Amino acid sequence: VRWNGWGDPSRSVTLGEEGRDFLRAELGEAEAWPSVPIEHVRLPEAAPVPAAVLAAAGDGAVRTDHETRLRHAAGRSYPDLARLRNGALELAPDAVIKPAGAAAVAAVLEACTSERVAVVPFGGGTSVVGGLDASRGDCRAAISLDLGELREIAVDRTSLTATLGAGLRGPEAEKRLRERGLTLGHFPQSFEWASVGGFAATRSAGQASSGYGRFDALVASLAIATPIGELRTRATPHTAAGPSLRELALGSEGTLGVITEVTARVRIAPETTRYEAWIAPDFESGCELVRSLAQSDILPDVIRLSDREETRLSLAMAGDGLGRRALDAYLRVRRRADGCIVICGWEGEREAVARRRALAARVLRGDGAAALGRAPGEAWRRGRYDGPYLRDALLEAGYMAETLETAHQWSRLTELYSAVGAALKEALRGQGTPGLVLCHVSHAYPDGASLYFTFLARRLPGGELDQWRAAKRAASEAIVEAGGTITHHHAIGRDHAPYMRAEVGDLGLEALRAVKERLDPAGIMNPGKLLP
Amino acid sequence: VRWNGWGDPSRSVTLGEEGRDFLRAELGEAEAWPSVPIEHVRLPEAAPVPAAVLAAAGDGAVRTDHETRLRHAAGRSYPDLARLRNGALELAPDAVIKPAGAAAVAAVLEACTSERVAVVPFGGGTSVVGGLDASRGDCRAAISLDLGELREIAVDRTSLTATLGAGLRGPEAEKRLRERGLTLGHFPQSFEWASVGGFAATRSAGQASSGYGRFDALVASLAIATPIGELRTRATPHTAAGPSLRELALGSEGTLGVITEVTARVRIAPETTRYEAWIAPDFESGCELVRSLAQSDILPDVIRLSDREETRLSLAMAGDGLGRRALDAYLRVRRRADGCIVICGWEGEREAVARRRALAARVLRGDGAAALGRAPGEAWRRGRYDGPYLRDALLEAGYMAETLETAHQWSRLTELYSAVGAALKEALRGQGTPGLVLCHVSHAYPDGASLYFTFLARRLPGGELDQWRAAKRAASEAIVEAGGTITHHHAIGRDHAPYMRAEVGDLGLEALRAVKERLDPAGIMNPGKLLP
Repeated sequence: VRWNGWGDPSRSVTLGEEGRDFLRAELGEAEAWPSVPIEHVRLPEAAPVPAAVLAAAGDGAVRTDHETRLRHAAGRSYPDLARLRNGALELAPDAVIKPAGAAAVAAVLEACTSERVAVVPFGGGTSVVGGLDASRGDCRAAISLDLGELREIAVDRTSLTATLGAGLRGPEAEKRLRERGLTLGHFPQSFEWASVGGFAATRSAGQASSGYGRFDALVASLAIATPIGELRTRATPHTAAGPSLRELALGSEGTLGVITEVTARVRIAPETTRYEAWIAPDFESGCELVRSLAQSDILPDVIRLSDREETRLSLAMAGDGLGRRALDAYLRVRRRADGCIVICGWEGEREAVARRRALAARVLRGDGAAALGRAPGEAWRRGRYDGPYLRDALLEAGYMAETLETAHQWSRLTELYSAVGAALKEALRGQGTPGLVLCHVSHAYPDGASLYFTFLARRLPGGELDQWRAAKRAASEAIVEAGGTITHHHAIGRDHAPYMRAEVGDLGLEALRAVKERLDPAGIMNPGKLLP
Repeated sequence: VRWNGWGDPSRSVTLGEEGRDFLRAELGEAEAWPSVPIEHVRLPEAAPVPAAVLAAAGDGAVRTDHETRLRHAAGRSYPDLARLRNGALELAPDAVIKPAGAAAVAAVLEACTSERVAVVPFGGGTSVVGGLDASRGDCRAAISLDLGELREIAVDRTSLTATLGAGLRGPEAEKRLRERGLTLGHFPQSFEWASVGGFAATRSAGQASSGYGRFDALVASLAIATPIGELRTRATPHTAAGPSLRELALGSEGTLGVITEVTARVRIAPETTRYEAWIAPDFESGCELVRSLAQSDILPDVIRLSDREETRLSLAMAGDGLGRRALDAYLRVRRRADGCIVICGWEGEREAVARRRALAARVLRGDGAAALGRAPGEAWRRGRYDGPYLRDALLEAGYMAETLETAHQWSRLTELYSAVGAALKEALRGQGTPGLVLCHVSHAYPDGASLYFTFLARRLPGGELDQWRAAKRAASEAIVEAGGTITHHHAIGRDHAPYMRAEVGDLGLEALRAVKERLDPAGIMNPGKLLP
């Protein structure tokens, strides 16, 4: 894993001359941002980890070297990457413990409770909300608990469920299911690196959430190791036995305990897939179109409507990869130069895909969208995990690039869209770095949808964190003001914690704190995350 | 409302000579069971309700007369009805308070907290698990809080959501939505009397849950008045902002507070409906068939597979209503005398209904089921709310009739089916009253389904409660042993509370208690329910 960026070090996305020209024209000349070498990154001095904790971890499960600490010290948000590139981390775990199994996890939590050592669960390391910050809270040290050894898998073919170890990363879980003709159907952009436990702990949503469901909706049951013991929910398809404990563990972000195992609903692996692009006349009519599909139960499995700015930028950055010239010509001819791209994907049995596509195509056409064919759809699919690599290239070239997301009911979605976009633009202007703000609608539901924003600006060398904070604060306040949720699928972590009171109210916080205090009486579980 | 039975006093179901003969042959001669008159029902003496509580309730909101107390003292389980018919209630509220709105609810809860008065929320009064028992817990008195005045409704046509007052009963909510061309799509057997707040507090499931979703899945957000203030969840289609507080309030059965308002996803009212019956060769192949439909995403909106015994009994009890003779002849000809009836219902746009029916019919036929046509399907639909009226007739004739339900994954469903059926039969035999045990599968999911049992036996006059307890205990223990859930949609109430530890484990109870103690520090909310 690239220590100061995304994913596979042998893989990268380059900007190309055309892309660089575009950025220069839009955002101004930027000063390239080289990273310090890994050995120059300063970490805070490690506090000693009590012997009882080390003993509980088991032989060979503890690492305290500089590189291991560093590799567990940050997620993949812009501020995380900025700290890494600049070589100065304010926080790092005092040790990294990688338990051999769920029993060792329980033993470590018990020892950490007695010894007052904070525990930061580590799955894929892809948090973009500060979920991996090694805050000690009131504890004397903090460890990163790497769940990478929890990789068991057991399939119930009859019930179409799979019990998956929390440490399984997306591709391994998917590969082992595909060997049995099954799929989890969960493909967030972080898929290649994120873990099953992380998907559950953060309520991840995959790009095909319309078809397969958000990860939390796929979870039939789970096991969570808390400092006072294990909570295991019953694996029945549904129950009316009181409040949902499964829904209490989902989204708990390591603050109640460590999710060690998830039983998820799986599907028969698709016989065929079909991805294509359409173009809607504008963003508003595009939203209406997605709403129409969602409310008629004929949503494609993947649906993604880019706003005008995202459409324009993706065309500009794509070079010839997307068949851009052909596309441009087509758009001009159809007088949709202001159009918004809609990516649609279907997966499943051949006959069902054809039937569902035909139903959706009728609505798309009826609502004024024009078909662009399969090539740009398949291009999107091929590049679906490339976004974070592209971001590395942007950072390298000296630009800030960050994403954030929210969701609202359809009746208030365009209001939220405008408010967040305006807030981001104003904040970036206020920093003297006017920016680009892009957005897409994805994860559509009958009652609403999510909005996913990307913002780009010339980086302020040396002032990266303040620049980011100004934009993030402005967007978050606009979201709260417009009644959207502070996060649709990135979770709360440290970055969104200040907005939890607005999100759930005083009583909501009281209820969450009550559970936290009961299950984690010493306050060792992921301090500083989720709860303000 | 009939005070000692179900629903509308002007409506009833009669057994008919043929039905009586059948019961006599199967269960033995029973001694008729006349009810005492209402004025002879003994209630415990009312404790005085503190003046501060009465003042908080507001003018005209308090009733303490015998009939009002009696009408709020029991739900509609067999033991509830037995106590009413026999004229002796061990528990009754000391007063009935019907607040004018959510503000008055909050005021009453505050006063009850100061004065230590227990509060039993009352919606439709249809609990079948002892959810309305007026237990005082550690309090000095107990009031029934009748939510019948909370009947506001507001529709967001764009987002297809409706905000519904907790006191709205099924038909009123549905009527007011239909006036706007919408439907809630929630039709449990208790529909005609149960309330929106009750649907949410107990995680009700409607007969069309496959199509419209269980009630908890329809809830976008809700407001719950707790003794320490109001908790209101955010109305966005989804959020990753931590554990779900909505899912903590759903199923809370009045133990955390009073659900005052629910924002639910609604649908366009169906253009057409189509109900029909099929016959599967036997129960096992019927289960496979339902599984097949559920796992292919082509479940009808209503699906209900009766086992052999339920099929036989419904034919025997139906008289000529179902076109029984024609049906019998058909079944004989098709050599499916041991067959199991499958009711299928589709609702929606004409074209979608035709398409979805054709897809399902292909699977039904492929799996060996034979079509019985629309007449028996429509007959089931017409009689869908008649079950509780039929039960009154059975009680009147001297038979015990009770239902219970569970759910499990497909891989363990027939094991659970056999275990519960055997346990009920053995328990009834042990009481000297060999019984009939019927079952149907409904509420199907990709990973499993619910089982709904009905059991009938000759009543033991004077020993009704012991007889019922023996059967209930045997069934509940068999469910726990087989790993099913103690309830799929009837909730926990008082009757299932002893099984909550098996259901959610020690830590699950701890978590629920922690929330309860924080939100209801004086322990006034529905004592004795949900938590053991």
